[in-house]
Amino acid sequence: MKTDDESRHPPYIVDIRSQPDALQALLDAGWPQECTRLLESLGSFERIVLTGVGSSLQGMYPAYLRLAAAGLPVWWEDTGELLEHDHGSITPDTLVWVTSQSGESAEVAELLDRLAGRPTVLATTNDLDSTLAQAANAVMPLHCGAEHTVGTKSYLNTLVAVGVAVEAALGAGVPDSILHAPEALDTYLGGWDDQLGSISDSVPDASLVVLGRGPSIASARTAGLIIKEAARRPAEGMSVPQFRHGPLEMADDGLVALLFAGSDRDRALNDVMRHDLVATGAHCVWIDAIGSSPTVIETPALTAPIARQVAEILPIQLLTVVLAERIGAEPGKFQRIAKITRTL
Amino acid sequence: MKTDDESRHPPYIVDIRSQPDALQALLDAGWPQECTRLLESLGSFERIVLTGVGSSLQGMYPAYLRLAAAGLPVWWEDTGELLEHDHGSITPDTLVWVTSQSGESAEVAELLDRLAGRPTVLATTNDLDSTLAQAANAVMPLHCGAEHTVGTKSYLNTLVAVGVAVEAALGAGVPDSILHAPEALDTYLGGWDDQLGSISDSVPDASLVVLGRGPSIASARTAGLIIKEAARRPAEGMSVPQFRHGPLEMADDGLVALLFAGSDRDRALNDVMRHDLVATGAHCVWIDAIGSSPTVIETPALTAPIARQVAEILPIQLLTVVLAERIGAEPGKFQRIAKITRTL
Repeated sequence: MKTDDESRHPPYIVDIRSQPDALQALLDAGWPQECTRLLESLGSFERIVLTGVGSSLQGMYPAYLRLAAAGLPVWWEDTGELLEHDHGSITPDTLVWVTSQSGESAEVAELLDRLAGRPTVLATTNDLDSTLAQAANAVMPLHCGAEHTVGTKSYLNTLVAVGVAVEAALGAGVPDSILHAPEALDTYLGGWDDQLGSISDSVPDASLVVLGRGPSIASARTAGLIIKEAARRPAEGMSVPQFRHGPLEMADDGLVALLFAGSDRDRALNDVMRHDLVATGAHCVWIDAIGSSPTVIETPALTAPIARQVAEILPIQLLTVVLAERIGAEPGKFQRIAKITRTL
Repeated sequence: MKTDDESRHPPYIVDIRSQPDALQALLDAGWPQECTRLLESLGSFERIVLTGVGSSLQGMYPAYLRLAAAGLPVWWEDTGELLEHDHGSITPDTLVWVTSQSGESAEVAELLDRLAGRPTVLATTNDLDSTLAQAANAVMPLHCGAEHTVGTKSYLNTLVAVGVAVEAALGAGVPDSILHAPEALDTYLGGWDDQLGSISDSVPDASLVVLGRGPSIASARTAGLIIKEAARRPAEGMSVPQFRHGPLEMADDGLVALLFAGSDRDRALNDVMRHDLVATGAHCVWIDAIGSSPTVIETPALTAPIARQVAEILPIQLLTVVLAERIGAEPGKFQRIAKITRTL
């Protein structure tokens, strides 16, 4: 039976609005015991490779930064690019940590086939019967429920599942802040029409880039991906330094730059970029947990590590709805691609 | 004294046209002895980190694929992102191989300052007096001569210097084909007006993406960078699989996709993407060493590894000239940024 929301809204919007429940389901579920054992032995592997495609890959990026900062021999690489170098980085004593909502993406299936059970595989997936889950030594379920089109619930739950697992592996507990995330998302989505209105007012119809620094690079790149995918228009996500090294040259009054304010560590440097952008005549929109205004888009009120990235993608999801409606299209409705990519 | 070319053309075009000479200068120069010693001991380091920013980073990507395929513990990472995880991947027994034309980029200077001489540094740079060269244990000179704006000569010479060095480190010699590259580039650039005309005919005025697979991912990403930088318009470079995982959804008759044909290993899969793009109504331009036509742009006649990537970027450089002229702008003239980025 359809819920009231499912009858009234397109599937993509239903998915966006069900994120608080999906995240709560993840937080309520414990880790399977074999995951706990693998996470406890993370430091004993010769190499650790985090991999996936699309937003699954991006959802692992903040965790990669944490593991790399801890000095672990960790890689974070698109599964397609792993195949390009014949997955040479994967030795028999490597932990391959693969995230795939469906567990069936073409690159993931190809990689598992080529590895044929030699290294240890940890799977983060929504489908416990998938090729990925079947091939894995341990499975960390995403608990998303059905997801219809563009990655929404699966991206948030990947950020949290992988992020919390890495905190545990590094000896930290579950960050308190993440326990409040479902409620903060729910409050934010409760103001649906107001949020859409203020986002629409803040983002004029122009060329788009999305910029971030540190773990918010994941938000910038995922934003670039879902704007292309759900609203069918170009938008590149990149790090603030990458944008400064050349692309800044294209800034003028025909450019809208969405800039994630980021953590306390990053915001002073990001603010320099904001000023440099404004000086070119470009329209710079600051995305932060505090203070909606014509040049600031507000996120859900979450600012701790992991939780901040969860919050950052919400207004971008709503922006894709705004942008699709501007061209009279149904947001997130696939016309070219399928939910599962089965071609290399 | 100015050469005839320097009097008649903007600096960016002078740089493009001087690439055959710059590449010949690199090939004529031998390796300094301390580079040879470091390269011979490449396999003895605990870790190898290839790093840089912008096109310097991309110029190292094909070499990264070679080293990774050989099973070496090698990373390829934007220097800005290395700073994001506090360069945790760099242990005392790491070889840090840094490429920077100027040797003065903000991220590179910051990284060297933080590392303070602990790991071994191999520098690929054009300036032997730079911060990078001074901090390095061994320096591989780029022999570019002066470069005025957007990376052109420095990108080609990075591809070749780093690529040939890695072949040597893996026990292979200098590939014969690369010795013919300056002549092939010279022949190609000799048909300047014809090349500009046919490129202009092949690329209508629409949204641009640039796609590649394997080592040609470096060409796609560098194309995305220099179109933004030299022609001041959005253009995202990405791998073919990344494009299939979502962005393909935006393909329609308002999109031009530039697709590098790539090596024998890659072209059958790339051809599937070409067909899928055409089916959406998008304009797909195939970039290959053979066969100019309305839907094919010809590169210089080089198809061996390393040499193919050298050839692939030439028509893109010419495309930036075409695109800048369409909006009445001088190609490659910096209005927003400086040649050396000194801000993080």
